[in-house]
Amino acid sequence: MSDLLRPSSAHDLAGTAGALLEALRAAPPLTHCITNSVVTGFTANVLLALGAAPAMVDIVGESDGFARAASGLLVNLGTPSPEQREATREAVTGASAAGTPWVLDPVAIGTLPVRTALAHDLVVQRPTAVRGNASEILALAGMSAGGRGVDATDTPDAAADAALRLARSHGSVVAVSGPVDLITDGESIIRIANGSQLLTRVTGGGCALGAVMAAFLGASRAESSALTAVASASLVYTIAAEQAAAKAAGPGTFAVALLDALSSIRPAEIVAAARVERLQP
Amino acid sequence: MSDLLRPSSAHDLAGTAGALLEALRAAPPLTHCITNSVVTGFTANVLLALGAAPAMVDIVGESDGFARAASGLLVNLGTPSPEQREATREAVTGASAAGTPWVLDPVAIGTLPVRTALAHDLVVQRPTAVRGNASEILALAGMSAGGRGVDATDTPDAAADAALRLARSHGSVVAVSGPVDLITDGESIIRIANGSQLLTRVTGGGCALGAVMAAFLGASRAESSALTAVASASLVYTIAAEQAAAKAAGPGTFAVALLDALSSIRPAEIVAAARVERLQP
Amino acid sequence: MSDLLRPSSAHDLAGTAGALLEALRAAPPLTHCITNSVVTGFTANVLLALGAAPAMVDIVGESDGFARAASGLLVNLGTPSPEQREATREAVTGASAAGTPWVLDPVAIGTLPVRTALAHDLVVQRPTAVRGNASEILALAGMSAGGRGVDATDTPDAAADAALRLARSHGSVVAVSGPVDLITDGESIIRIANGSQLLTRVTGGGCALGAVMAAFLGASRAESSALTAVASASLVYTIAAEQAAAKAAGPGTFAVALLDALSSIRPAEIVAAARVERLQP
Repeated sequence: MSDLLRPSSAHDLAGTAGALLEALRAAPPLTHCITNSVVTGFTANVLLALGAAPAMVDIVGESDGFARAASGLLVNLGTPSPEQREATREAVTGASAAGTPWVLDPVAIGTLPVRTALAHDLVVQRPTAVRGNASEILALAGMSAGGRGVDATDTPDAAADAALRLARSHGSVVAVSGPVDLITDGESIIRIANGSQLLTRVTGGGCALGAVMAAFLGASRAESSALTAVASASLVYTIAAEQAAAKAAGPGTFAVALLDALSSIRPAEIVAAARVERLQP
Repeated sequence: MSDLLRPSSAHDLAGTAGALLEALRAAPPLTHCITNSVVTGFTANVLLALGAAPAMVDIVGESDGFARAASGLLVNLGTPSPEQREATREAVTGASAAGTPWVLDPVAIGTLPVRTALAHDLVVQRPTAVRGNASEILALAGMSAGGRGVDATDTPDAAADAALRLARSHGSVVAVSGPVDLITDGESIIRIANGSQLLTRVTGGGCALGAVMAAFLGASRAESSALTAVASASLVYTIAAEQAAAKAAGPGTFAVALLDALSSIRPAEIVAAARVERLQP
Repeated sequence: MSDLLRPSSAHDLAGTAGALLEALRAAPPLTHCITNSVVTGFTANVLLALGAAPAMVDIVGESDGFARAASGLLVNLGTPSPEQREATREAVTGASAAGTPWVLDPVAIGTLPVRTALAHDLVVQRPTAVRGNASEILALAGMSAGGRGVDATDTPDAAADAALRLARSHGSVVAVSGPVDLITDGESIIRIANGSQLLTRVTGGGCALGAVMAAFLGASRAESSALTAVASASLVYTIAAEQAAAKAAGPGTFAVALLDALSSIRPAEIVAAARVERLQP
């Protein structure tokens, strides 16, 4: 934690995150996911474990209407087939028209041309939130050529300027995942030091967090700021990951334990474990 | 259980289910699955654990011939891409021509237009069995607009009339999944009270059951009625779920334990645990 | 093991395999996978557990360039949609132009026409390695009509002549998976008796091995022969499977334990457990 740590802020966010988690479980947000073929099952299981209601609707002709009815939408560009690209455009149109909060996860953009072009088209449609690793956020801001594949080759703090710029340009909350997650709405910056290195050893460890953000945005509509909802999602998810890591013998048992932890985690545990700071840039 | 419980019927079905399970393991039925992208891996693992031979063949140009050679076919409409829709039509043509039993799972029909139209086209081709939650069965019978996404918003008993109507109209066994599964051929109704609420916290918990039904239909051809085969599949699967739930700390460990239980479950355990009743409507 | 067992060879390969594993973990090879929709998640998790860097890039317009930049490429024909078929052709073009080693896994070829034609087109482009079960290798060599679906109906030794013929015709290392794996470059034959029957009860048990081969080929470029890299992949994977089987209560816990074992396995364990022989045909 930096010397700007403000424990009171940590406590505030953790308390709010716990309240949002309980609200989510009491009224499961229908969470529309258009995500990559590698992580669909894991992502749905993460949402179900948490208490949300996932629906993977990614075909043309169904995505617009479904995004209008959903509580939140995730658009993840990991395996953007032509059908998914078209369905994504439909879904974003529907979400924008209906005011459904939506999350853009620009997986592996930078050197891969199809998804990079799509991500640039989508970000100007003002996603409620953008989630990526540092290399992806830098690439989306036009400040680097991206990493290699899905690997981050930069740290979240190195992407802070890019995140602020994106947030201010598009009215989005921008979340940079890494050892310390950095989340900003262009005004405040929240840094979350919770998590486990094992999240990088499970496919979908990051992608599923984007879906959790969509679920928290859906659960918190009009009650919390998007910044708070996105940071709450990150905090709950990374603390659950710490609980799972404590029981894991490796990445296989970790992924299983993460689902159990997401299902059982309680607000008091979040308050006790949170390592959060809030900065004014 | 209702007051119409008839223990002798429960015992009969449980004994038959155990015998069918042993037949399936002795001669693994080649089970052709066209299913949604979220649950393909889990569905294949469920079939492999049980002792069946899954094959996910869902492209145009291969599905007709493969459905003719298979022992059973599952058609699940969860993520019906254009390629899958066309492959589905091929597969149903092949299955119908060759007499391969097939199961239709009309995932999330009602408000989603593409799959709803496809389901109505397919059901008139007289699937051997239809499996869904209450909202999906009501929507397929034209008696409601369906649930929201994949959630059931109705109970199986509330869908009993819809199930009977579908069964009589199309010569299908209709299985309505829920806390108590309801299965009918239009004459008898079988209710199965086994299962675990954790099945609703794992993606594919229901979808994989449709594949198990296709496998049991394939294993039992000409030896049992379709009603018996479908009810046996439901009984074995839900009792394995109870065994798994007894070992689980949450949805992650439950899904893993379910695969172990499907692999190890024995006929005597099915007889001991079955909670079944048979009604004449 | 046959009477041709030569313990010194076993020790040599095991030592090399351990060294390659350490090299892979020290510099994770970017492993480009175009694989079937059933096993994408499991395959990525296997590579991540081992220490490699998977990237599932399977769309047209991205696959050529990515294959040029990757350390190794897997092409698996399990669910060859039109988009994947075109992306595969792109990727093989890129890999061939850049010298990226690539592995062809001709899943379920023989009776299924689309993938069979594609496999025959691809094999003449001289894959670095071909991995399949005995039925698939026989079908690729034109010596049988293949198995039923993804099941092997022949033993690896029955496919030895087919493997030698393919290896000599196309300059490929050919790996035949089964109770004893058989791997040849057309000159030497290596037989590996490690493994677990549980690998056949988990979907992707074989498919993920093809990805591991691509990763080992990527990690060992110019330092080892392709034969050694492919055999090392098989040895590490099958010994990890033995470690997992020792902890498993069934196929569910086995798959989880396999990921843990791939993450923790050490060179000394490989040397201690290896059961390898090398023959001159």
